[in-house]
Amino acid sequence: MSEFDVLCIGNAIVDIIARCDEAFLQENGIIKGAMNLIDAERAELLYSRMGPAIEASGGSAGNTAAGVASLGGSAAFFGKVSSDHLGEIYTHDIRAQGVAFDTVPLKGEPPTARSMIFVTPDGERSMNTYLGACVELGPEDVERDKAQAAKITYFEGYLWDPPRAKEAIRLTAAYAHEAGREVAMTLSDPFCVDRYRGEFLDLMRSGTVDIVFANEHELKSLYQTASFETALEAIRADCKLAAVTRSELGSIIATSDETVPVEAIEISDLVDTTGAGDLYAAGFLFGYATGRSLLDCGRLGSLAAGLVIQQIGPRPRQNLRHEAQQAGLL
Amino acid sequence: MSEFDVLCIGNAIVDIIARCDEAFLQENGIIKGAMNLIDAERAELLYSRMGPAIEASGGSAGNTAAGVASLGGSAAFFGKVSSDHLGEIYTHDIRAQGVAFDTVPLKGEPPTARSMIFVTPDGERSMNTYLGACVELGPEDVERDKAQAAKITYFEGYLWDPPRAKEAIRLTAAYAHEAGREVAMTLSDPFCVDRYRGEFLDLMRSGTVDIVFANEHELKSLYQTASFETALEAIRADCKLAAVTRSELGSIIATSDETVPVEAIEISDLVDTTGAGDLYAAGFLFGYATGRSLLDCGRLGSLAAGLVIQQIGPRPRQNLRHEAQQAGLL
Repeated sequence: MSEFDVLCIGNAIVDIIARCDEAFLQENGIIKGAMNLIDAERAELLYSRMGPAIEASGGSAGNTAAGVASLGGSAAFFGKVSSDHLGEIYTHDIRAQGVAFDTVPLKGEPPTARSMIFVTPDGERSMNTYLGACVELGPEDVERDKAQAAKITYFEGYLWDPPRAKEAIRLTAAYAHEAGREVAMTLSDPFCVDRYRGEFLDLMRSGTVDIVFANEHELKSLYQTASFETALEAIRADCKLAAVTRSELGSIIATSDETVPVEAIEISDLVDTTGAGDLYAAGFLFGYATGRSLLDCGRLGSLAAGLVIQQIGPRPRQNLRHEAQQAGLL
Repeated sequence: MSEFDVLCIGNAIVDIIARCDEAFLQENGIIKGAMNLIDAERAELLYSRMGPAIEASGGSAGNTAAGVASLGGSAAFFGKVSSDHLGEIYTHDIRAQGVAFDTVPLKGEPPTARSMIFVTPDGERSMNTYLGACVELGPEDVERDKAQAAKITYFEGYLWDPPRAKEAIRLTAAYAHEAGREVAMTLSDPFCVDRYRGEFLDLMRSGTVDIVFANEHELKSLYQTASFETALEAIRADCKLAAVTRSELGSIIATSDETVPVEAIEISDLVDTTGAGDLYAAGFLFGYATGRSLLDCGRLGSLAAGLVIQQIGPRPRQNLRHEAQQAGLL
């Protein structure tokens, strides 16, 4: 097996995206900007209240894998779909982007996961995720050869929601480290951090995870502090490298002895923030796997994130390699 | 039953939209800018070669119904989906837009229709349509009360492709005329005109159709002439009213004794021409049903068409009523 730049592991989700006004979120008890977990019954109810929508393959780490491939990197993905039409769409889209995806689909119920994403006029997305087949991802889905062939294994904190995915992560991380590779994670969502704070800190402190991606809110949630500086100092001590995104303020990359600030790109039309963090991670990881400086890794992240938020949907329609070349980053 | 502004009848299709380069169309024998009819086997082949895609409800007359509703008009739709996931998506989207849609879905095979739409860098769309469940639309699907309650019944020429839809059209038109209503059609596509030229002319000359929508290419194909002026004079004699779109040249509305030129709106970023004609018809028909001047009908058409081509997908994400108010048209 040839080498991969990045192996991504995450919930395999098809996004159902519609616009709504602020009142809709309140009336329906949807926490704005967050990933709200829902069951099948609530999924049906919300869909019945949702406006006309479009469907697009999503899922946090899946978006990152697609972004790495669009930048010209070699990417692989582990994630569970069912053998249904949404599963076929998901599989088509990620493979068509050039990502190696061979997780065996679930036969029968539950169906492929979907997330109803409501985008408010300010561009913020509020997700309502029915995990469906994702609850079946487990250690039997770990492909050892890919885990050992990937320079970096990257997974989403969201994987602590389904019951057995964390076992898959721990196994993959062990294989990766055995082969001298690095392991990265994203904290995913402030509420997700709140649910699994102790376990996430343990992943970092035990050395299961080397590199952490977070946005400012997730980082503060992790250390239960209102101070960004306090949280940044804390994570610096807890992992080898942290990349923290701060929306229009850009991002900060921190190691034990280095702090690299990175600017955001200029946004002419903020349409939909879905995928911003995922694409930042894609740009960063592609840069990191191909041996670039931390500043250039961050710049690649800023570019990919900046492009995805100027369109609807979680994966940029542009060829990111071409865009990065135009921007002088490749 | 309360009155409808417009009843639309068409193939109920979910669009699968991806970008491609010019070479892809040639290599795969896809006629650029046209609606290419394909069978299930070719659908599978093309999908396997297609890049990452997004899914959105489409279908020509369905897009028009959605546009009328978005303008604040009351719209109804007849069209056949199957009882599968794509059928649920189609039904959700058109109803969520406020369109009355009650055609009984097909049980079992064939599945809901889909069109693989390839968008080239120039924004032109090339469609590859697998008709699926649409082939089952027939006169038994005509809801007489809606046909008689709609100020205008509008259908797509594409309905001559499935075997029995034309019977549904003739029956609906008879009901509509019995109630003193008007009937409109779109010529749909130059190749479609080529397939059914005689029947389309007969629909017009027999008075089954009062109002005809066409683009320049379809109009020339109908009369097998290279001269726009010749074709325009011909259609003036064959129907009560014709609205002919000419891309960036705007449109011409022609009756027996009147010719009204209408400007296109300024386009800052041509992204995807899918739905342009459908939305022109939506704007025009909404204006016509609400008693506006032909010029204002055309302007509403230009606005709706101009908005849809500056985004991906066949139905504008804006609230068209709001946009028309901003533009001083409502």
